[in-house]
Amino acid sequence: MELGFLGLGRMGFNMSRRLLLGGHSVVAHDSEALRTQEIMEQGAIGASSHQDMVSKLKQSPKCVWLMVPSGQVTENLVNKVANLLSPGDIIIDGGNSNYHDTIRRHTILKEKGLHFVDAGTSGGIWGLQNGYALMVGGDPEPVKFLEPIFKTLAPENGYLHCGASGAGHFVKMIHNGIEYGMLAAYGEGYEILEKSRYQLDLLAISKMWQNGSVVRSWLLDLAVLAFEQEGNKLDGIKGYIQDSGEGRWTVQEALEQSTPAPVLTLALLQRFSSRQPESFSAKVVAGLRNQVEGDVISSGTKHSDSFCPINVPTRQ
Amino acid sequence: MELGFLGLGRMGFNMSRRLLLGGHSVVAHDSEALRTQEIMEQGAIGASSHQDMVSKLKQSPKCVWLMVPSGQVTENLVNKVANLLSPGDIIIDGGNSNYHDTIRRHTILKEKGLHFVDAGTSGGIWGLQNGYALMVGGDPEPVKFLEPIFKTLAPENGYLHCGASGAGHFVKMIHNGIEYGMLAAYGEGYEILEKSRYQLDLLAISKMWQNGSVVRSWLLDLAVLAFEQEGNKLDGIKGYIQDSGEGRWTVQEALEQSTPAPVLTLALLQRFSSRQPESFSAKVVAGLRNQVEGDVISSGTKHSDSFCPINVPTRQ
Amino acid sequence: MELGFLGLGRMGFNMSRRLLLGGHSVVAHDSEALRTQEIMEQGAIGASSHQDMVSKLKQSPKCVWLMVPSGQVTENLVNKVANLLSPGDIIIDGGNSNYHDTIRRHTILKEKGLHFVDAGTSGGIWGLQNGYALMVGGDPEPVKFLEPIFKTLAPENGYLHCGASGAGHFVKMIHNGIEYGMLAAYGEGYEILEKSRYQLDLLAISKMWQNGSVVRSWLLDLAVLAFEQEGNKLDGIKGYIQDSGEGRWTVQEALEQSTPAPVLTLALLQRFSSRQPESFSAKVVAGLRNQVEGDVISSGTKHSDSFCPINVPTRQ
Amino acid sequence: MELGFLGLGRMGFNMSRRLLLGGHSVVAHDSEALRTQEIMEQGAIGASSHQDMVSKLKQSPKCVWLMVPSGQVTENLVNKVANLLSPGDIIIDGGNSNYHDTIRRHTILKEKGLHFVDAGTSGGIWGLQNGYALMVGGDPEPVKFLEPIFKTLAPENGYLHCGASGAGHFVKMIHNGIEYGMLAAYGEGYEILEKSRYQLDLLAISKMWQNGSVVRSWLLDLAVLAFEQEGNKLDGIKGYIQDSGEGRWTVQEALEQSTPAPVLTLALLQRFSSRQPESFSAKVVAGLRNQVEGDVISSGTKHSDSFCPINVPTRQ
Repeated sequence: MELGFLGLGRMGFNMSRRLLLGGHSVVAHDSEALRTQEIMEQGAIGASSHQDMVSKLKQSPKCVWLMVPSGQVTENLVNKVANLLSPGDIIIDGGNSNYHDTIRRHTILKEKGLHFVDAGTSGGIWGLQNGYALMVGGDPEPVKFLEPIFKTLAPENGYLHCGASGAGHFVKMIHNGIEYGMLAAYGEGYEILEKSRYQLDLLAISKMWQNGSVVRSWLLDLAVLAFEQEGNKLDGIKGYIQDSGEGRWTVQEALEQSTPAPVLTLALLQRFSSRQPESFSAKVVAGLRNQVEGDVISSGTKHSDSFCPINVPTRQ
Repeated sequence: MELGFLGLGRMGFNMSRRLLLGGHSVVAHDSEALRTQEIMEQGAIGASSHQDMVSKLKQSPKCVWLMVPSGQVTENLVNKVANLLSPGDIIIDGGNSNYHDTIRRHTILKEKGLHFVDAGTSGGIWGLQNGYALMVGGDPEPVKFLEPIFKTLAPENGYLHCGASGAGHFVKMIHNGIEYGMLAAYGEGYEILEKSRYQLDLLAISKMWQNGSVVRSWLLDLAVLAFEQEGNKLDGIKGYIQDSGEGRWTVQEALEQSTPAPVLTLALLQRFSSRQPESFSAKVVAGLRNQVEGDVISSGTKHSDSFCPINVPTRQ
Repeated sequence: MELGFLGLGRMGFNMSRRLLLGGHSVVAHDSEALRTQEIMEQGAIGASSHQDMVSKLKQSPKCVWLMVPSGQVTENLVNKVANLLSPGDIIIDGGNSNYHDTIRRHTILKEKGLHFVDAGTSGGIWGLQNGYALMVGGDPEPVKFLEPIFKTLAPENGYLHCGASGAGHFVKMIHNGIEYGMLAAYGEGYEILEKSRYQLDLLAISKMWQNGSVVRSWLLDLAVLAFEQEGNKLDGIKGYIQDSGEGRWTVQEALEQSTPAPVLTLALLQRFSSRQPESFSAKVVAGLRNQVEGDVISSGTKHSDSFCPINVPTRQ
Repeated sequence: MELGFLGLGRMGFNMSRRLLLGGHSVVAHDSEALRTQEIMEQGAIGASSHQDMVSKLKQSPKCVWLMVPSGQVTENLVNKVANLLSPGDIIIDGGNSNYHDTIRRHTILKEKGLHFVDAGTSGGIWGLQNGYALMVGGDPEPVKFLEPIFKTLAPENGYLHCGASGAGHFVKMIHNGIEYGMLAAYGEGYEILEKSRYQLDLLAISKMWQNGSVVRSWLLDLAVLAFEQEGNKLDGIKGYIQDSGEGRWTVQEALEQSTPAPVLTLALLQRFSSRQPESFSAKVVAGLRNQVEGDVISSGTKHSDSFCPINVPTRQ
């Protein structure tokens, strides 16, 4: 089928390629003209602007997939594209938007007669080859209409209409939260291995674990690649971990639910710690310890005035 | 090759079967005669006692695999079997022993001229089919000698000589620690899904995640089975989580290393919490909150004596 | 000086009493007439409605202290009272409002020429005797004007103009976050004492710690009271811990700052746990453990099809 | 009464002084002769060796207080002194020994007819002035005999016979664990204050909190001193936090009890983190994130072979 596609970054470009390989007609635009040019070389119809993209869509309803950074960029693009479309048309947000925003946008677009579908997309750079897990939310009608697109993007059985508007982004958010926890679990395990009395070969262990162990997973497969490329010490990697929003939103969601999720939470907090050159909290604790155990007895404090020999109970 | 096998529980029985299927000669004994009988029906040579087992081993060196609970049971069995063997013979501990115990036993057996190999074994009930990931520690010579056994038990590339004595149990311990963290990550994620505003189908989501998602793993495959068997609410499952030792040892090892491993640690502590009908800690906090905010002002306390009107600064 | 006072709950009533004892003129109103009556018996001028209260304030600017639950109740009351006041008048929010709300209200009231001061109030039921620690935020002019009130409510050196609008509620929020952490630290420590091999007398230990120990504190004084009243087992206390908002906001603030605050966070999550009869997360983990270690090998799964005897490497 | 005193470090020296001020006769020795000289100037009887100290004790039973680092130093000293004493004599370990060691030493000394009393000592450098909280364990008879000593060292009501041998060190251990949690709670709270949108004066806030707030404590008093001496930014303090053993033992004890103590545990782990220039765990997580989201698609991996155009479901 025909799909407008806005945002040809690392994710969007490969998703467009996969759609083209699947026989779909893609009308694509990116704010960088070079990216638009490159996807045209893969078979897409290029568009010079959002308006041009919309005008080149010939089927009805028009369907436009957005694959841009969440937050203000998505907000602006949704509004702009909505103004170019007509009742019955469909906007799909494939990015990592907060589901609260998605629900809000869905409501606003509904008032204009537009459909708004959220499609949480997992798979990273491997999606081109393996397909993208798609977590879809929205009204049944447009979701049904988009099925051919979802079937091409996803591997077999790799997409799900999770529920009403926002459900796709919600499930994708939790998916990323779980990813945070799993990554931290591996990270901590490898650190204890690395610091052991044994000279352990983390690459060899990872490869062995890929076969028959309880902890085998796709992330473990990536650990094998990481140790292959960077060596057992990961010398080339800086221990500085970004977070992209969804792990943090997962923790915030848990807080709002009053759900205790200590493992997902600590996985996030460790990322914060990894980005701190020095912790003020640690300075406070160190400073208080100095006060408890230091060798200078300050005078003039509220503590010192209580001491005088007569306060000491005498011999009995 | 020929192998003595002691301990035909859920793990040991299937491992023996796999060895028999692989064409090895297994002389097996279990303290329950019925289990010995059953493995004989699978092709093993039965032994009526430890001594009988050892006497039926014809090749040299004699190799005896122990698959019994860690701790005192393993301790006693190692000592007993060691007394039945001759210099050059090999004992393999395939159980979940603490690696400190393993190193100690290795040293003691070495003085008797015996080899002691540790083989941390992962795979659970699935090992019969899929093979067991084997994490092996010990001296090179006996480990090399046992390779045909390891190759049959493990799937392809599924065993590794990790290092000196104890290294196998060490790596297996960390493996289990990581498993604790991964399980908790999934558990918390599913709980947030379950409590969301959406009526999410956890089984369908799990199946979708199996394909193309970042969190796909063998444990996720098991989640699919669990939701299939127990339903999305897991009504038949009690939220009471045992721990078997290795997760706890992982945390203790991290503490001894001064390695911060908050995610693995919290995964363990949540298991503790799951087993507490009521937390005394929570009672203390609730009791103190009552004191701060309760509506009774106790008299006769150290706080009450400080109040009298003249302590209130007067109007100015 | 003269002060209107709205909200004569546990906190508000005692604060009014303390103001009256300090010689101020208090015009008070509560939605429950009985409470208004009771404070009149303590010397206040009673008001039958918000409007009546405002009309009975004779000095200029009129100052009205709100002591009501945060959230919608405070929102409504701020709006209602603001409509009754004139430019230059002052509203003080002494409740536990979220500082974001406070900043917003300050901005809105400023447009009407009204002053809005936030006064985070600590001290619980003990404040009447000991005074209330007051954390004040807002513009310098109204804060300065209110000093006589603050001086009466607080013990000596017990109030501070922390900064611009919201700073008072912000500091109070963090104060409560710290309280969460301290309470949890005591709670956990007492639980380990309680479960030790010794028959420890928690009351006696608490009393001893009050004198010379590093952990002596006002909360420890309350622990003494709690153990005195409830006994060492706290039998009468349910291990169910409410949270009032500010501890949670502290954690949310830390998340927004990307500040790792694991201790304050876990203190909050433990409160969540205390309120869960059963953890769904624990059910998931228990269910997955069953799958790994259970004794039933399901057929028809993606795992089972990989097993057949010829997959087992044969004897070599 | 008369007391032998071994170990005149920061703690031991001041304790000896307090005993002398209280009218006791102290026969003191330190491995550094200068320290022995200094305590003689305060009124103690100096001893040139352990043997000399014991021989100068004239009363019976002889009582010797040890105030030396825990672990091997204490172990050696207990053994040495025990060999110099006679049945009925008393050794007191006032240091931070692990209570398991204490129980073991008590048993061994009992066989020799000697008494062994443990006295966990809190108060740091402030103990000279304020007295030391003393947590005492051991048999009733020697504990009773030592009461005059305890009464002088402790402030009023500041010592407690907690229970049998080890109970004193056990309670002191938990006391320190609680201290870890409290320090971390303050540290994290101050960090959130420090990073807020407001320019908050941490010293002024701390001073205000000393009066009437819920979080007032002796440690808060020390925070006031720390900010006074080091400034609100604590520029002179390195965020590197030592741990002395007892906090770690508390966590280990909780693990052995299967008691969830997440706040005390995280307080310890944050100390570990403060001492790591870079986290290997963070390197692993960062490395895996690179693999998920990086822009290089590796060839020759187990993932890449699954991709070819015909795997993409075609247009429908």
